Amino acid sequence: MQGFRRIGVLASLHHPQVLDTLKALLAFLEREGKEVLVEESLAGDLGAANVAYADRDHLGRAVELVIVVGGDGSMLAAARDLVHYGVPLLGVNRGRLGFLTDIHPAEIETRLKEVLEGRYLVSERFLLALQLLRAGRPLGGSLALNDVVLHPGKSVRMLEFELFIDEQFVYSQRSDGLIVSTPTGSTAYALSAGGPILHPSLSAMVLVPMNPHTLTSRPIAIPGDSSVEIRLGERRDLHPQVTCDGQVDFCVEPGDLIRIEREATTLKLIHPRDHNFYAICRTKLGWASRLDSESHIER
Amino acid sequence: MQGFRRIGVLASLHHPQVLDTLKALLAFLEREGKEVLVEESLAGDLGAANVAYADRDHLGRAVELVIVVGGDGSMLAAARDLVHYGVPLLGVNRGRLGFLTDIHPAEIETRLKEVLEGRYLVSERFLLALQLLRAGRPLGGSLALNDVVLHPGKSVRMLEFELFIDEQFVYSQRSDGLIVSTPTGSTAYALSAGGPILHPSLSAMVLVPMNPHTLTSRPIAIPGDSSVEIRLGERRDLHPQVTCDGQVDFCVEPGDLIRIEREATTLKLIHPRDHNFYAICRTKLGWASRLDSESHIER
Amino acid sequence: MQGFRRIGVLASLHHPQVLDTLKALLAFLEREGKEVLVEESLAGDLGAANVAYADRDHLGRAVELVIVVGGDGSMLAAARDLVHYGVPLLGVNRGRLGFLTDIHPAEIETRLKEVLEGRYLVSERFLLALQLLRAGRPLGGSLALNDVVLHPGKSVRMLEFELFIDEQFVYSQRSDGLIVSTPTGSTAYALSAGGPILHPSLSAMVLVPMNPHTLTSRPIAIPGDSSVEIRLGERRDLHPQVTCDGQVDFCVEPGDLIRIEREATTLKLIHPRDHNFYAICRTKLGWASRLDSESHIER
Amino acid sequence: MQGFRRIGVLASLHHPQVLDTLKALLAFLEREGKEVLVEESLAGDLGAANVAYADRDHLGRAVELVIVVGGDGSMLAAARDLVHYGVPLLGVNRGRLGFLTDIHPAEIETRLKEVLEGRYLVSERFLLALQLLRAGRPLGGSLALNDVVLHPGKSVRMLEFELFIDEQFVYSQRSDGLIVSTPTGSTAYALSAGGPILHPSLSAMVLVPMNPHTLTSRPIAIPGDSSVEIRLGERRDLHPQVTCDGQVDFCVEPGDLIRIEREATTLKLIHPRDHNFYAICRTKLGWASRLDSESHIER
Repeated sequence: MQGFRRIGVLASLHHPQVLDTLKALLAFLEREGKEVLVEESLAGDLGAANVAYADRDHLGRAVELVIVVGGDGSMLAAARDLVHYGVPLLGVNRGRLGFLTDIHPAEIETRLKEVLEGRYLVSERFLLALQLLRAGRPLGGSLALNDVVLHPGKSVRMLEFELFIDEQFVYSQRSDGLIVSTPTGSTAYALSAGGPILHPSLSAMVLVPMNPHTLTSRPIAIPGDSSVEIRLGERRDLHPQVTCDGQVDFCVEPGDLIRIEREATTLKLIHPRDHNFYAICRTKLGWASRLDSESHIER
Repeated sequence: MQGFRRIGVLASLHHPQVLDTLKALLAFLEREGKEVLVEESLAGDLGAANVAYADRDHLGRAVELVIVVGGDGSMLAAARDLVHYGVPLLGVNRGRLGFLTDIHPAEIETRLKEVLEGRYLVSERFLLALQLLRAGRPLGGSLALNDVVLHPGKSVRMLEFELFIDEQFVYSQRSDGLIVSTPTGSTAYALSAGGPILHPSLSAMVLVPMNPHTLTSRPIAIPGDSSVEIRLGERRDLHPQVTCDGQVDFCVEPGDLIRIEREATTLKLIHPRDHNFYAICRTKLGWASRLDSESHIER
Repeated sequence: MQGFRRIGVLASLHHPQVLDTLKALLAFLEREGKEVLVEESLAGDLGAANVAYADRDHLGRAVELVIVVGGDGSMLAAARDLVHYGVPLLGVNRGRLGFLTDIHPAEIETRLKEVLEGRYLVSERFLLALQLLRAGRPLGGSLALNDVVLHPGKSVRMLEFELFIDEQFVYSQRSDGLIVSTPTGSTAYALSAGGPILHPSLSAMVLVPMNPHTLTSRPIAIPGDSSVEIRLGERRDLHPQVTCDGQVDFCVEPGDLIRIEREATTLKLIHPRDHNFYAICRTKLGWASRLDSESHIER
Repeated sequence: MQGFRRIGVLASLHHPQVLDTLKALLAFLEREGKEVLVEESLAGDLGAANVAYADRDHLGRAVELVIVVGGDGSMLAAARDLVHYGVPLLGVNRGRLGFLTDIHPAEIETRLKEVLEGRYLVSERFLLALQLLRAGRPLGGSLALNDVVLHPGKSVRMLEFELFIDEQFVYSQRSDGLIVSTPTGSTAYALSAGGPILHPSLSAMVLVPMNPHTLTSRPIAIPGDSSVEIRLGERRDLHPQVTCDGQVDFCVEPGDLIRIEREATTLKLIHPRDHNFYAICRTKLGWASRLDSESHIER
């Protein structure tokens, strides 16, 4: 594969360590002779370094690779903002393995160098496109890389809604809400709510009901090109919300229609060549490694 | 679509009602002027009616459609036996809706007639091919439409095994076993064990651990063309079994390799035109129908 | 056992049928020659019938039995309001079996008559007493017959809290919250969230985490006389709430302490003599009745 | 509390380290001037040390404390064998924390010394008494400290049975079986099967269905003094087993009755004074320790 010459850099500076990692990254990219564009919101923290700044739009158009310094949350926002530019993303976390960020700050010199020289894996991920409709008219929407979640917002009472898939009625449900997750999101909130893990290469969404009144309501995995529609019930005392990736909120009302479909443009995630989805699962979820006759846990 | 002229008929006569349904079906097919081949094992029960008999092999070669009278269990066996003949299957249950059999005896005159005249839906289902290997040499195998299940057999103790997907190590596990299920099987045993429902059109398998020692072991859905390998641990006091569709058993031993892949030839299930997967889920799983302000259950 | 002579009557008139049932009940009680006190809020709907009205306080002091017409929700509110008066409660639902209300309007003449004559069962239920503390000072509190639920309120992000039982640290958790449920509440919201059923006679509470980040966080049942304390983490962007029985809400803040203990006074629920907890479970949860060789569902 | 002078010692020598730990323990007890009785089956491995040997019966009668060297499995067997002698048990594991064994070999000099001098906690645990009946006549039985499990044995098909609690019919069920667990067993097999954790001091059993056909079949916790009866269905092709603590097996037949009640005599487990149930849960189940703003896992 081809290497990368023009690099964009994003970061969210919630944690002090991120700034250190960011500076180390920029120093490395300068030594490597890369053309670098840094998101302009970082100018205040980085100071008058000899660095070029740009907004996300310019950055998305100009670079061949965007490196995101931060946690999985920063990657989610970057993915939604940049997917339409076609530029691939790479995550450098601030010291912890994530499902989306897999270069440790200490590995910048080695593993990142390899990536920039063209030795890497590409993982295509699809996003969900949320569209809200009130009385048939568009009310707003967003993209989501992980999940679109219908939840009670400030309501205390259970929600009521009807679910349709590809215009077929599926069920009406009373519950705390519904998670519509991509394979990427299946290891995040959907997993806490009892959903299955979907391998990232699967073209599927999974629908996970939250605390359903009917105990037989179970997670359903459906084809990735399905059209999901949720029609909210008419109870007036509810104030539900729809949230994308846990980051973008919309208030909805009784009778509103929530439409979720696969976004046509996919996202390219760049991974080092030894990236392995199952190895990340083992680490993050505490799955056991190889059998060893002495290591049996006697519970 | 084209209608069907040469019809094969299978049945399992465990329940007295099946024989009545079978006779009604044959009378109907005769009235419709179809060429009918009945499985020869039914000759004893049907008597010297003016019916032609054949074994499954001849029947599979000769007919354009096979009608299976019985429950989902009969369909599973028919699917494994006949998939390679390319002949589509249609299930007539003996009085109860099933996930695989969806013509009620009372509907033979109406819905079956429509099917035979060419008005029907086709649902393509894939099967799993199980292959067992001991010290690298083939030990046996079978097909499965629903699932391949590794379980303790007469052992009482937990099994130990390592799981590989597409030659990548996934985890080692101590548990009562593992269910590898097709979408078709996801509403059967895998569901009881906590697995998700997979829409029948999804090209995916789901792996559901049974009572795993590690509480973070969760169901995983993987692409349908994955190669799954389970290597049994070396503990000598275990006598595990591998079972296909709950019907075909194999004894395995420590160190054996269990390989599961998608069978290349797919099965065609024939459904009446109003067949709807979600409607069957609602009926079988007790999901709620349309919202109605008076029907709220106050728990 | 002794019969009841002075009867209090409560009702919530959300559904038109409740008024009909209420009128039928009052007519029956008059025919039986009972002294009846009706909650004064019902005066507007009942009109100038020859009925005596009183507020809940007077009613609680004056009567020997309180009949609640409505669903389980009405019973929950009545239980919290009246437990300290020591007066037993009986529920007449408006047409559907509930876990707390078990006389059908059509049975007033028969089963209610039996109860009033002294033939009944008593089920003692304990309530939870919630106390909120900020910087060590009382902030408010409530009773709960079903459950006390910590949930994100209008927050979208996961909560963080530490759990202590009998002053022993149990765990810190990131989740959507925690349900602390009585046996009475174990068949309500806690069940939807994955909790076990606790038999009503058990002196135990169950703590059910909601969508916990750590997959090994599981429901725990602890002795009914335990002291449960939840210390909210210090994250400033959260606005969690604590809700009793899904009906009484409190806003809490980072650093607040949520203390939950068993209320000393127990509630007496009156049931007809054929009341059976497991029979209600079978009906409400769809558990199978007696084995019958023809009734096997073939899935 | 009083110290212990006459000490019994049991061990299961499946692992080489156990012998080392056993020798260290005996040397320590000799230095402390204790009277020691070692189970006679260990004589072959220990050799002609100046140690007195006895069978379990003599040992149970003669000593004030029994120390079990091994894992939780060894403790389970010792508990069943010795509960009726009234002698308390203490577990020394061979290098790993267990729910039942909580003195590490390295701590013998310190924590065990404290226990022997009278500084310890006592945890009372109840056992289950299993009784099997065929056509009303006793067929056999056993005690269980963890659980009594009905499972398919060498059958492949689901079992069918009816459940009664205190002579009240609860449900009929088709499943892979049922786990009846004490609080002690609730962190063992029952937990893998989806059961709740029961605090050890709770007087309760929990019934956990295994892979039930009916998805609404959920774990139920019932009072510890309940009488549980399972009546096996009449299907002739099943060969179920009943197993106590995963160690003692019984074959049962269609129509047999499985009766499970609390054993009257309780077991005393001895723990070091800093023993803490929740701390063991945190370690064994990976629950998070105190909140720390830097330790948030961003999933």
